[in-house]
Amino acid sequence: TTTATTLKGQPLDRAALDAMLRRRMFYTPSFEIYGGVSGLYDYGPPGCALQQGVIDAWRKHFILEEDMLEVDCSVLTPHEVLKTSGHVDKFADSMCKDPKNGEIFRADHFIEEILENRLKGDKEARGHTIAAKEEDSKKKKKVKEAAVAIKLDDAVVKEYEEVLAKIDNYNTKELGELIQKFDLKNPATGVQPLPPVDFNLMFQTSIGPSSNLPGYLRPETAQGQFLNFSKLLDFNQQQMPFASASIGKSYRNEISPRSGLLRVREFLMAEIEHFVDPHSGKKHPRFDQVKDVELVLLNKETQLSGKTDVQKVTIGQAVANGTVDNETLGYFLARIHLFLKKIGVDQSKIRFRQHMANEMAHYAADCWDAELLTSFGWIECVGCADRSAYDLSVHAKKTGASLIVRERLPEPIKVTEWEVDLERKKFGPHFKKQGRAVEAALFATTQSEREELAKALDTDGSLAIEVDGVADGKVSVPKELIKIEQRTRTENTRDFVPNVIEPSFGIGRILYALMEHCYWTRASQGGDEARGVLSFPPTVAPTKVLIVPLSSNDVFRPFCYELSQKLRKIGISNRIDNSTASIGRRYSRNDELGTPLGITIDFQTVQDKTVTLRDRDSTSQVRADQEKIIAAIRSMVDGDKSWQDVESELPAFVGQETEVTVRED
Amino acid sequence: TTTATTLKGQPLDRAALDAMLRRRMFYTPSFEIYGGVSGLYDYGPPGCALQQGVIDAWRKHFILEEDMLEVDCSVLTPHEVLKTSGHVDKFADSMCKDPKNGEIFRADHFIEEILENRLKGDKEARGHTIAAKEEDSKKKKKVKEAAVAIKLDDAVVKEYEEVLAKIDNYNTKELGELIQKFDLKNPATGVQPLPPVDFNLMFQTSIGPSSNLPGYLRPETAQGQFLNFSKLLDFNQQQMPFASASIGKSYRNEISPRSGLLRVREFLMAEIEHFVDPHSGKKHPRFDQVKDVELVLLNKETQLSGKTDVQKVTIGQAVANGTVDNETLGYFLARIHLFLKKIGVDQSKIRFRQHMANEMAHYAADCWDAELLTSFGWIECVGCADRSAYDLSVHAKKTGASLIVRERLPEPIKVTEWEVDLERKKFGPHFKKQGRAVEAALFATTQSEREELAKALDTDGSLAIEVDGVADGKVSVPKELIKIEQRTRTENTRDFVPNVIEPSFGIGRILYALMEHCYWTRASQGGDEARGVLSFPPTVAPTKVLIVPLSSNDVFRPFCYELSQKLRKIGISNRIDNSTASIGRRYSRNDELGTPLGITIDFQTVQDKTVTLRDRDSTSQVRADQEKIIAAIRSMVDGDKSWQDVESELPAFVGQETEVTVRED
Repeated sequence: TTTATTLKGQPLDRAALDAMLRRRMFYTPSFEIYGGVSGLYDYGPPGCALQQGVIDAWRKHFILEEDMLEVDCSVLTPHEVLKTSGHVDKFADSMCKDPKNGEIFRADHFIEEILENRLKGDKEARGHTIAAKEEDSKKKKKVKEAAVAIKLDDAVVKEYEEVLAKIDNYNTKELGELIQKFDLKNPATGVQPLPPVDFNLMFQTSIGPSSNLPGYLRPETAQGQFLNFSKLLDFNQQQMPFASASIGKSYRNEISPRSGLLRVREFLMAEIEHFVDPHSGKKHPRFDQVKDVELVLLNKETQLSGKTDVQKVTIGQAVANGTVDNETLGYFLARIHLFLKKIGVDQSKIRFRQHMANEMAHYAADCWDAELLTSFGWIECVGCADRSAYDLSVHAKKTGASLIVRERLPEPIKVTEWEVDLERKKFGPHFKKQGRAVEAALFATTQSEREELAKALDTDGSLAIEVDGVADGKVSVPKELIKIEQRTRTENTRDFVPNVIEPSFGIGRILYALMEHCYWTRASQGGDEARGVLSFPPTVAPTKVLIVPLSSNDVFRPFCYELSQKLRKIGISNRIDNSTASIGRRYSRNDELGTPLGITIDFQTVQDKTVTLRDRDSTSQVRADQEKIIAAIRSMVDGDKSWQDVESELPAFVGQETEVTVRED
Repeated sequence: TTTATTLKGQPLDRAALDAMLRRRMFYTPSFEIYGGVSGLYDYGPPGCALQQGVIDAWRKHFILEEDMLEVDCSVLTPHEVLKTSGHVDKFADSMCKDPKNGEIFRADHFIEEILENRLKGDKEARGHTIAAKEEDSKKKKKVKEAAVAIKLDDAVVKEYEEVLAKIDNYNTKELGELIQKFDLKNPATGVQPLPPVDFNLMFQTSIGPSSNLPGYLRPETAQGQFLNFSKLLDFNQQQMPFASASIGKSYRNEISPRSGLLRVREFLMAEIEHFVDPHSGKKHPRFDQVKDVELVLLNKETQLSGKTDVQKVTIGQAVANGTVDNETLGYFLARIHLFLKKIGVDQSKIRFRQHMANEMAHYAADCWDAELLTSFGWIECVGCADRSAYDLSVHAKKTGASLIVRERLPEPIKVTEWEVDLERKKFGPHFKKQGRAVEAALFATTQSEREELAKALDTDGSLAIEVDGVADGKVSVPKELIKIEQRTRTENTRDFVPNVIEPSFGIGRILYALMEHCYWTRASQGGDEARGVLSFPPTVAPTKVLIVPLSSNDVFRPFCYELSQKLRKIGISNRIDNSTASIGRRYSRNDELGTPLGITIDFQTVQDKTVTLRDRDSTSQVRADQEKIIAAIRSMVDGDKSWQDVESELPAFVGQETEVTVRED
């Protein structure tokens, strides 16, 4: 089952976690005093710092360690670019409307919710008890219908279950057929919605004062990277393979965003475009370094058979047996896994799921999602797609720009090909204004077409070719204007359009999953009130150190201030809490904020400058002089040492604080 | 004059710098293979890294050092929010159109360019020579008109000069009058443009599938911070003053963007909102720490008299003599200055200019811009505005949210006020649906209005009040429904709406100015070809270290790799250049990229693990073992040491490289 648990295996109370995240201002609905706008959220100070920690870790793990070329491209994108990329025509979700009350649904969610409800009714009718809080879908219910206890035929149950297992695989027409077939009605009105239509998910605007340049907010950062391909290749001194990367906001006008931070209209993405020679077998030079990393995989065949069984294998095996298509794709799956581990994602709550054919974006040749298990179910947080040569090819074709790599061949080769020569002096005057279009059509012909055309010239004295937009679409070219011959030439270079492997991270989704994965509760000192804790690793925690004076006595003030300044100097965020609350309460507040380390300044500090350092998770403490403590903090924040390391190196301190333990719920 | 110079005082050849910045991919026009879109640019790898360095420095200088509350808010903003803030009605530039060819101009730029041209013609007629490359305006010429040598009356020259000095001070109507008065015509058509109209600069879109929620891309990050004020105050445990901060993109649909990176439609901002009690005299607790910082100021009185004379004073003096209104504003001007200094802005090219009344944004009570001198003239890069209580007040009024601070008074005070009580049982039924509007109008009355209304109730038995949108706008309230009395109560707390001081940074403009300020050329080794250098400080430089093996000999490879990994581990970006080019050429490429430090791996490295470290600016070198060199690099990147410090600590190395010197142009 997908019943969610905390870091310590306790049942996860999502409402309690959510209330805590909002109270501590990890996030908050945007424009809340104006009633809010669904799908738009703001990050408050701890959310913002956590996001920054994750981005810094990402930049270090990918851009710095792998020498990627980071770019920062415009969000505003003119229509023509996204028309070419296919987004204007294909970047859409299926939407259906209730003809009676005008309510709008995302068609797949609508079907999913009603079928799940019927299955629930069936279970009840069969006498199964339904857990009160069971949430087995990632979509929060919009279609509000109490499950009615009606027993279904076994065959119907099986059919519903299969439909649900591959719900992402249906197109708009098929979704409409399902609504008809199963007679799905909006419970609010008792009416079947109108047949679904495609709704484009891009936000539209117009650029410039005269409203004549339509544009969109980019739906992904990738296009900017593709359009700069040639410049990036130059910057990389023509060396292949290489990767560009970009961190920035993208926008999708979701039909009906729910699920809090998981389905939003404005979101931060971190995307990598790794450009590789398709004829290299998509080998990766550093694959060996990751080949033993173990991943949990859910392949497309399993899903198409209506199941969700996973295999746990090393990426080396998965590439060797063909489950994962190539080394480069495999390399990035492993690197994604290592990154998620580094920032604190629960290792037992990651799987990589392969896309089914219809589910794949219009540009993708193969795609695996890193999914994280949350109380909303398994959530796609990172996509890793093989976009093949799709994007570079369509942009090159549209603009005439040369988005290719020219590689020097080790040995010259001989190439025999049909070539087209125009008799330009005559060709131009003959076709006048239409000359360019005719020329383009002639040069766009394939080898076999050219062979046919050459024959036609030979036998008929002219050739016929289709040219869009010229006269009736058919043009005749007499042999005085053109020569088509088979020739053999020697080539020293080889031109190719690189393929693209694209790991694409939804930072907001990762943050949300991370907050669920790091959350647990412990019983409070003596009482039985559950206290929330967010066990973020020091590397990404919003604030690294809480500094607390033992009391409000003025004697502690300069020590707190000095320590705080020293930590800031080396870039370690910290807060002094000199409120009048008890030390326990102050630590409790910082448990909720996920602050991993606490320093207490006491009377001994005044005498000998030693301080105690406390670990949030174990609440154990060590004591040493300031400099040693600062060095220990730095090594934990840099990810070089764990608390266990520090504890084994510095003297333990057993002090004023009462032990608190994991609350058993 | 504003003739631009390089870091070393050489005349600045902007075309040469620009060609270099594009060749090295600091920036590039967005969508260039599609012909580009004016006002939209992408940052390539070095531009992106420089931007990141500046943002990191900003975050450390402001957010970390001053304990600010960082937030990350939505860019998509619903209409209602920006209607309330005044942006829908007032965030506009004056635009005029040529009736003949449809060309569109920004009215102030149009006037400025034609008047400047006439003044140039006058100078020529008077026999002054005009420097070929003189650029005394920040706006690149769009109105293309060769200056015609016509002598003007002295009085006319004076009038033109005065208009130009206060060109930012005219409203749309006044700009129209100037066009008429001086008979300004579009040189391309010989026709006077139509009277200017306001053009709103926000990009519009619609949110959600039913197109019923109009929205805009935010024109500033500030509104998100204001709307979260109460939550931020809670987060700060009710302590005042405090500051929030945000780094993110904002959007302005410029009428006709030119001047490269200086006037763009999509740009990164870093904004601080410092909330302060208006009755505190806007004192700042750390003002003493900055009071001796010297600033160059250009106040509004000087500008209104048509002059641009500056004063160099300490911020302590400027606040004391009232030039700068208050300590908090003064504190931030000084902190801005220190930040700009830290990232490498030329100290002789900064001034702080006060806004004139009409020039100020609709929300501002006082405003100073940090302007940086570039080849486009003095450019506003940071605005520092006192927005008073404007924003919090209008949002509170519109939404009914309580955007106030409640302060406990040291002593309770007695307050005597007119109070309104409604007889709710009768009031509701009497006014029915209009009850809420009438009630709101009654409670919105001022103390003196209430006094009048109380009198009316007394004498007429009813009061009359204006209520928007109810019947004919006038409503009568009989005395049975209402009581208005003067009462005295004791208060223990005081409520106030904080004032806001807002330092707002245009990161893109700062980056461009920084690139100009750090640029200079030196003669190449032996030849006379000028080589470009970008002397970025190590803290913000895109790549910190270039690692070069002496030759392509395989023996050097592991040393390069090990060193590179060690530097990466501590977050220091570096590149190994093992191309076949000469060491000189490799350094030369990295001079253009602004890489401050170079390490050479040679045969001695293989023997004793020592390496040489070279300073980009002086080209002098030191030699020491790896660990010492790494420590020296880290201290320079952290900003703790200068090259001079390092040079005095480590042994000098005089090696294979020939000295290069500043090129005298």
